[in-house]
Amino acid sequence: MVKKLKTGPLGKQSIYFAKAPGLRSWASIAGKKEGEGPLGTYFDEVIDDAAFGQDTWEEGESKFMEHACKLALKKAGLCAKDIRYLYGGDLLGQLIATTFGIKNMDIPFFGIYGACSTAGEALSMGSMAIAAGYADHVLATASSHFGGAEKTFRFPLEYGNQRPLSATWTVTGSGAFVLSSTEGEIVIRGITTGKIVDYGVKDSQNMGACMAPAAASTIYQHLQDFSSTPDDYDRIFTGDLGKIGQDLLLKLLSENGIDISKQHRDCGIEIFDPDTQNTGSGGSGCGCSAITLAGYITRQMLKGEWKRVLFVPTGALLSTVSFNEGQPIPGIAHAILLETKNLRKSEDA
Amino acid sequence: MVKKLKTGPLGKQSIYFAKAPGLRSWASIAGKKEGEGPLGTYFDEVIDDAAFGQDTWEEGESKFMEHACKLALKKAGLCAKDIRYLYGGDLLGQLIATTFGIKNMDIPFFGIYGACSTAGEALSMGSMAIAAGYADHVLATASSHFGGAEKTFRFPLEYGNQRPLSATWTVTGSGAFVLSSTEGEIVIRGITTGKIVDYGVKDSQNMGACMAPAAASTIYQHLQDFSSTPDDYDRIFTGDLGKIGQDLLLKLLSENGIDISKQHRDCGIEIFDPDTQNTGSGGSGCGCSAITLAGYITRQMLKGEWKRVLFVPTGALLSTVSFNEGQPIPGIAHAILLETKNLRKSEDA
Repeated sequence: MVKKLKTGPLGKQSIYFAKAPGLRSWASIAGKKEGEGPLGTYFDEVIDDAAFGQDTWEEGESKFMEHACKLALKKAGLCAKDIRYLYGGDLLGQLIATTFGIKNMDIPFFGIYGACSTAGEALSMGSMAIAAGYADHVLATASSHFGGAEKTFRFPLEYGNQRPLSATWTVTGSGAFVLSSTEGEIVIRGITTGKIVDYGVKDSQNMGACMAPAAASTIYQHLQDFSSTPDDYDRIFTGDLGKIGQDLLLKLLSENGIDISKQHRDCGIEIFDPDTQNTGSGGSGCGCSAITLAGYITRQMLKGEWKRVLFVPTGALLSTVSFNEGQPIPGIAHAILLETKNLRKSEDA
Repeated sequence: MVKKLKTGPLGKQSIYFAKAPGLRSWASIAGKKEGEGPLGTYFDEVIDDAAFGQDTWEEGESKFMEHACKLALKKAGLCAKDIRYLYGGDLLGQLIATTFGIKNMDIPFFGIYGACSTAGEALSMGSMAIAAGYADHVLATASSHFGGAEKTFRFPLEYGNQRPLSATWTVTGSGAFVLSSTEGEIVIRGITTGKIVDYGVKDSQNMGACMAPAAASTIYQHLQDFSSTPDDYDRIFTGDLGKIGQDLLLKLLSENGIDISKQHRDCGIEIFDPDTQNTGSGGSGCGCSAITLAGYITRQMLKGEWKRVLFVPTGALLSTVSFNEGQPIPGIAHAILLETKNLRKSEDA
């Protein structure tokens, strides 16, 4: 049994929610390759057409997000007008996947950008709004798209460039979550908000190395703030560090006396099989952690396999403009403390 | 005397803060052209070098933001470590101006994107965090840069393209605000969060037309939610509609029986003199409303000229990718209800 963690008030970077916002519903819409991966059976829907019936990848990505939001609403038994705020973002410049994905839903909207940590940022802000009493229900969503991301950040797919093994494969898909003031089976018990961490890494084909220091910083601070140890968690999931990033994360934390090797999993490592899917170091993109949470992690928690999970989406703050101007790629990571509803009751008993 | 507006709980899109977050300090750092405009004497500092001593416009924009944040902190008598959260954004892809501007401040960071409404989004989220008790102090900041924005959204400056009169001129500058749980002379009494509004406008050289429907929607809903009329406000400031957008805004609201012609001002119209500065329809960019608030509007409120101002930064959700793919340019606007500290006390008396 995991022990009861420290409650508020918490220092530094964390908030503990005494009345924890509930994950009322969630939806995961995945692309074809993601559907063929190890987590394929966990997703609500797998869409074989990368453009989702639209004319462009970007419009297709919007459709993935719109579809995920609508399915999450349907599962929650709610309409768009029941949602007080929508927190959403994506990787494309100026958040166009999100803009065109959610504009017809007519919900007050906060656009956010945290690179691949966006799902964590959306869940953080959404849970803060619910716990403060500003809303009964909010939507949190994030998406990414392999074609759109390669075009934006690296090379057009038609160019057929070689990919180093350190490169990650951007996930095509979108996850959406309805957070509510009434508890669900899974609750958001707390958050730890990340800072920008820059170790000076300049390799856009090795995002894991860019993000690992930020993940280490946020996880370290989370454990400090909650006075907890890795053994208090069933799993600690980072977003999309991939294999190289995972090695760095474990090393950085062990240098600070913390060993999370037993609990650590990475959405990017779980989502693809590198041996058969040619996905290099693993999956990446805002959609990677979003659909892994909405498809896989929530399922394991509902089944009772895991009672407390630290979910830490990781973002590499990469732009081709700053990259071409010689700037490094800083990282950021936001942690969400997920618990099953009855965890603390069973501890109190 | 303006009347006391409705307090909480408010419907639809607005929040009323019973314990209003205070604007503890603010700073405005403006570019050369902005310094030569009608508001030039109001800014804290005018930087003649568009690159602010850096190698590129983008690094220069980061410097504008960093400088604004540090000056706001200094005026507040605070250090970076006193700030619980930083909410910031800019117009560049993947928020690089913000990333590199604030990364050394080591503050938990929420990256946000609302196009030119970003200052409104940052002040909204920052005031929500303060009013909920999540933070004693937060920083809210936004920036834009003429050179960087033209390169990103239209043509490289070296190309020397002709600008239609409907085009606006992106402001070079950054505004930063420290919000605190202890009231300042000016408080944020409430917010109205905008929805994405899309009238199908496709002209990236006429951003006023893209944003006016969103501004009308947010102002209309604000007046509904607070049961108020335009006469209850000393001024209603939109962000960067420019002259063409202003005409459309007044028309759209008058069609709904609302006349704000007496109270309405637009930061984009105030900041430049189109006759002598060749700035077309007016100023624009995240920095436009941010430095106009930090430089001009706050000054007028401190002097007692205005006691209640509705500040409504407006954003056009434009990306060259979606634009080149034939998509329209939707808009969004977020309203901040600013009041002088003693306004309600004098009403209660």
